[in-house]
Amino acid sequence: MKRLNTIPKEDGFRMPGEFEEHSGTYIIWPERPDNWRLGGKPAQKVFVEVANTIGKYEKVTVCVSKEQFSNARTELAPYVKVVEMSNNDSWIRDCGATFVVNDKGEMRGVDWKFNSWGGLVDGLYFPWDQDDKVAQKMCELEQVDSYRLNDFVLEGGSIHVDGEGTVMVTEECLLSKGRNPEMTKEEIEKKLCDYLGCEKVLWLKEGIYNDETNGHVDNMCNFVKPGEVVLAWTDDPTDPQYQRSHDAYQYLSNETDAKGRKLVIHKLLTPTPILITKEESEGVDSVEGTLPREEGDRLAASYVNYYTGNGFIALPVFGDPHDQLAIETLQKLYPDRKIEPIYAREILLGGGNIHCITQQVPKVKVVDE
Amino acid sequence: MKRLNTIPKEDGFRMPGEFEEHSGTYIIWPERPDNWRLGGKPAQKVFVEVANTIGKYEKVTVCVSKEQFSNARTELAPYVKVVEMSNNDSWIRDCGATFVVNDKGEMRGVDWKFNSWGGLVDGLYFPWDQDDKVAQKMCELEQVDSYRLNDFVLEGGSIHVDGEGTVMVTEECLLSKGRNPEMTKEEIEKKLCDYLGCEKVLWLKEGIYNDETNGHVDNMCNFVKPGEVVLAWTDDPTDPQYQRSHDAYQYLSNETDAKGRKLVIHKLLTPTPILITKEESEGVDSVEGTLPREEGDRLAASYVNYYTGNGFIALPVFGDPHDQLAIETLQKLYPDRKIEPIYAREILLGGGNIHCITQQVPKVKVVDE
Repeated sequence: MKRLNTIPKEDGFRMPGEFEEHSGTYIIWPERPDNWRLGGKPAQKVFVEVANTIGKYEKVTVCVSKEQFSNARTELAPYVKVVEMSNNDSWIRDCGATFVVNDKGEMRGVDWKFNSWGGLVDGLYFPWDQDDKVAQKMCELEQVDSYRLNDFVLEGGSIHVDGEGTVMVTEECLLSKGRNPEMTKEEIEKKLCDYLGCEKVLWLKEGIYNDETNGHVDNMCNFVKPGEVVLAWTDDPTDPQYQRSHDAYQYLSNETDAKGRKLVIHKLLTPTPILITKEESEGVDSVEGTLPREEGDRLAASYVNYYTGNGFIALPVFGDPHDQLAIETLQKLYPDRKIEPIYAREILLGGGNIHCITQQVPKVKVVDE
Repeated sequence: MKRLNTIPKEDGFRMPGEFEEHSGTYIIWPERPDNWRLGGKPAQKVFVEVANTIGKYEKVTVCVSKEQFSNARTELAPYVKVVEMSNNDSWIRDCGATFVVNDKGEMRGVDWKFNSWGGLVDGLYFPWDQDDKVAQKMCELEQVDSYRLNDFVLEGGSIHVDGEGTVMVTEECLLSKGRNPEMTKEEIEKKLCDYLGCEKVLWLKEGIYNDETNGHVDNMCNFVKPGEVVLAWTDDPTDPQYQRSHDAYQYLSNETDAKGRKLVIHKLLTPTPILITKEESEGVDSVEGTLPREEGDRLAASYVNYYTGNGFIALPVFGDPHDQLAIETLQKLYPDRKIEPIYAREILLGGGNIHCITQQVPKVKVVDE
């Protein structure tokens, strides 16, 4: 397939909302022992549950290193597609392609530059060369051309779109020194709008407390549908998350989206703070250059990091009293989708959650004038 | 996809003739410097020509190691699909899946055990672990279940079928000590018939002289269509190939196929003997355990190693006076296909030719009773 140098928006392409219909989902198999405890075995079990669950609703492709290919193929359900793909870790939301579509039933990929959440400034591991090839390889598998940005660093988890011209991000991430420090906020806005087919950028100040991605929006706030968002929330003023959530609420209350709509904001209580245990910390290899997982560190747990698919919501739960509330809240927000709760502490221990390990492929359709 | 333990023939599956319609072709990108001279660069140019040429007629997928992915993607035409796949070398005819179909429009893969043309007896390199996974990975990409044979070594180039119950092999290869020495000829016959959906095995004694594959049939003799074969030939009695071709001619003249037909045999003159030059030999890394490429060694050159695809024949030529004769002979045998001659000395230097580096995926169709 071809590499394109034109601008998706000018070519008539836009990123659909995640809630629009998918043709499938991609996942990368976890394995690196300096991020996933016990050689990745506990995390792999949860990734299997995520892949097999989503696979009941839409086609799932799991990308696996050559070393883990046979193991992944054995562990995953037969209806999951398994392909070889080298990687540095398993966050395909962030290193994978962002797919855009037009009204003629065509799809293309956006292949952002990836630098491990901050490059040499505050990146999480080194090197990240294989991660940065994942997007192009996905486009080859999907047989679509791709837009490659050599001059703009972005992770898919740092954006959410409503599919109708609005993209939501955090300043904490997009203005961080490890991304595109040479660009102004206005230049970044233009890049986002150009490559996602948007007209308006909503700038939350921060994401979830202690989120090593520099506060990705996908852990903090999500579009349920155009004009409606769900926001991670806490009522505990002693929690460092409190101010972040309240700031975001206030900001969003005073904003409108690309269509001029006021936003309906649904609060979603975060779980009680979750800390890394001694046993969990000890299971992770210590490697210079990789972010350590230390006992007592607070994890960036949030129910907002769910994945929206065809007829379902894959929701991370934590064995927390707020689990049930999250299930009920989302069931009301998504009356036509089945809520699939998955106990996801092992993904959280690696630094993200279900939304971070998935990437949707939209279903293309011809739109009549 | 699933691994199956049943028998293709009993399940109603057969391997179609290569001349039947394809849905596509697979190729592996060459790179190992102890087999391909000058880091594989001259061979890569020819592989590109083969892939791009076939790609004009049917979908081509090129499988590439992570190290060569970007280079291959850049060199190949955009209409060629490029996927990551680890390998030990680039002979997908031999290590790849053999696809079988049934009359209901279904396809499955046969995943023979691969041991580098002779394992620890007379194999050509060590290890061959990644080659042996290629067939399963192809089946994942095609999303078909596969039959895995852990107890039977076979390369796809050591068989040719007419799609109507006949499989043709050589004793030189299939009875060699490096394949299945613990099996009788009758047991091997049964295995071939069971997994290819055949009733009759034609046993040529030998293949092409000095063929390092232990005389693969695909360099020696091919089915033009059921009841009709093309045979590598020489009229020079001083050529060690002479006796081999004459023995095969005599054998085939006295045999019938699975349908009881006498075979029509077309002779195809081999090129004048081709030897490795000093310069060619010096471009290959010397690695213990890999077959060396020595100056003066005779190459197993044969026009029979062509690939039959949808509307074309990809024919290796050598800058030899017999090239034109081969083109004309095949054009007469395949009046409805365009002959695409490709100067293929660089593939030959690696130990095979166009048929050895390609593997067809048949087009499935529902056959009315």
